[in-house]
Amino acid sequence: MKIAVDAMGGDFAPADVVQGAIIGAKESGVGIILVGQEPKIRAELSKYDTTGLDIEILHTDEYLVEGEQPAYALRTKRNASIALATRLVREKKADAVYSVGPTGGVVAAALGYLGMVEGFSRPVVGGPFVGFAPKTVIMDGGGNVDCRPDQLLDFGIVGVVYAQKLLNIPDPTVAILSIGAEEGKGNELVKGAYPLFKKSGLNFIGNVEGYDIVTGKANVIVCDGFVGNVLVKFYESLGKVEVRWLENQLAGKLPQSEIEKICNDLIRLTNVADMSGGGPIWAVNGLVMKGHGRSRYNEIARGIVQTKDLIEKDIVNALKNELAVIRNRLQAKEAQ
Amino acid sequence: MKIAVDAMGGDFAPADVVQGAIIGAKESGVGIILVGQEPKIRAELSKYDTTGLDIEILHTDEYLVEGEQPAYALRTKRNASIALATRLVREKKADAVYSVGPTGGVVAAALGYLGMVEGFSRPVVGGPFVGFAPKTVIMDGGGNVDCRPDQLLDFGIVGVVYAQKLLNIPDPTVAILSIGAEEGKGNELVKGAYPLFKKSGLNFIGNVEGYDIVTGKANVIVCDGFVGNVLVKFYESLGKVEVRWLENQLAGKLPQSEIEKICNDLIRLTNVADMSGGGPIWAVNGLVMKGHGRSRYNEIARGIVQTKDLIEKDIVNALKNELAVIRNRLQAKEAQ
Repeated sequence: MKIAVDAMGGDFAPADVVQGAIIGAKESGVGIILVGQEPKIRAELSKYDTTGLDIEILHTDEYLVEGEQPAYALRTKRNASIALATRLVREKKADAVYSVGPTGGVVAAALGYLGMVEGFSRPVVGGPFVGFAPKTVIMDGGGNVDCRPDQLLDFGIVGVVYAQKLLNIPDPTVAILSIGAEEGKGNELVKGAYPLFKKSGLNFIGNVEGYDIVTGKANVIVCDGFVGNVLVKFYESLGKVEVRWLENQLAGKLPQSEIEKICNDLIRLTNVADMSGGGPIWAVNGLVMKGHGRSRYNEIARGIVQTKDLIEKDIVNALKNELAVIRNRLQAKEAQ
Repeated sequence: MKIAVDAMGGDFAPADVVQGAIIGAKESGVGIILVGQEPKIRAELSKYDTTGLDIEILHTDEYLVEGEQPAYALRTKRNASIALATRLVREKKADAVYSVGPTGGVVAAALGYLGMVEGFSRPVVGGPFVGFAPKTVIMDGGGNVDCRPDQLLDFGIVGVVYAQKLLNIPDPTVAILSIGAEEGKGNELVKGAYPLFKKSGLNFIGNVEGYDIVTGKANVIVCDGFVGNVLVKFYESLGKVEVRWLENQLAGKLPQSEIEKICNDLIRLTNVADMSGGGPIWAVNGLVMKGHGRSRYNEIARGIVQTKDLIEKDIVNALKNELAVIRNRLQAKEAQ
């Protein structure tokens, strides 16, 4: 089992990527292909004892940088590290690609070299972003704005597979995020999606409201990527502001170590994505894992371990199977 | 100066409404017309010393209840307390109406008896909902879903008047909530609204992201009412969950009174709307103030005092003037 790692992506590449990959390889026993500038990678590798680890290097000089227009950058840098790493998955020389490089570039490489799972129109990202509701997945948390109702159903299907495979929830409940619980409450998108969910055979519990994101009322909450993106960023930023506020409130009243513990817990609960090793880009035809650009070696190590877990869980085929089941149900209902 | 108070609206009517109105009248010196079932109102009034207060009763047997379809309920109960109170404003027998009754009914009465300020298409609600950013107004926080770009501009104009009149900010900065700061980032609605804001002459600073709601980057942040509603409810619910979490973290480590103080502060910062006496329904042609249905007498008293303040600030005319200025600017640009 091998993971192609984009050694040049992220704010601390290649140093933290190489270090994180080594720790991840030690922990999980997975093979690693580090893709990027060989001399730099070799210099980093030489700092550690890698005896017994299955680590190779695939050299390329090119890599993407933050701020480039992703599709254009990939056309002009055909051998960018993320492109080469993704092609390793297409060529079945790696079982997954892991990158903390620019999101647009990772997605564009996935689209260009792996393509979509047939039946899905756009990549999807998301997950449990509220630490107080760890069993609630928000889909889409990314950039799918101006969605159609059938895309919301796609997000629901992805969310169900996420909840089953990553959170071990056998039959996840699914809800649409809206401004009222009743059918008929919401915008045109929600109203259009509601009947699709009703006949999908998913464990659909109807609409939920903003209140319900935090209380774990549903395991999967779908929304368009505009709403999801705003919510995730709002929540992360709020967490940081609250921690500063709490530090001030507690200063001098508790020992510093106690204050730090409480504040660190609050940051963990409110900045979930920062703390995890990243997550899959869903609905592309191969396992593509993306971590935060500011990930340090320890997050990257966690990301590698998680990637190995998702290879074993075969989430891409799980998604294909779930989609097939839903489609058959919908077709059966149409035929009635 | 007189405020028509819907004595039958809210979870604790008429007892808390009458008590709150008395306290509000004492504090502000404003005249009060209590609209509702006279015997019940009189029974409540008799519990207090109202010497020297300008309080009258306008009797009606009918009133709206939570859960009714508002427009239909108003057609069948033409003398519902909220209808009568709103008509007092139309007939210039009152300067404002205050209600903690069902939102739909208050809005429907305002639309039916006062109409819209010419140039606006729908009522708007909103305000500073994040206690950590008290100088940032979110518009629309209500139910204007599936908006057009020119409606976002309406929200911006309302927000500017809100910030000027209620927050004393002379030249408020205005931003569009989006998923990226650059022009061109966002959904179709945002992309359509951006050029309108640019040429509006408002103090427009571009797009802001979810992060920026909490940090006070703009004084007015506009979004459609779907996004606004989800954000406001998410935030309120989150605050309650966080307070419970914090109580558990601090239990046994600080004196109970200290814990209560910190937790009460956090509730105040996260449940801003609960703590205020309510807010205006904007863009209708008269001053209509709406408080939470679960308001108790102290919130209602604050609402009365705030209503008097907004009568003095003449916010309806301020809105008309701001709209006229913006329109002239836009027309001048079109003519160029």
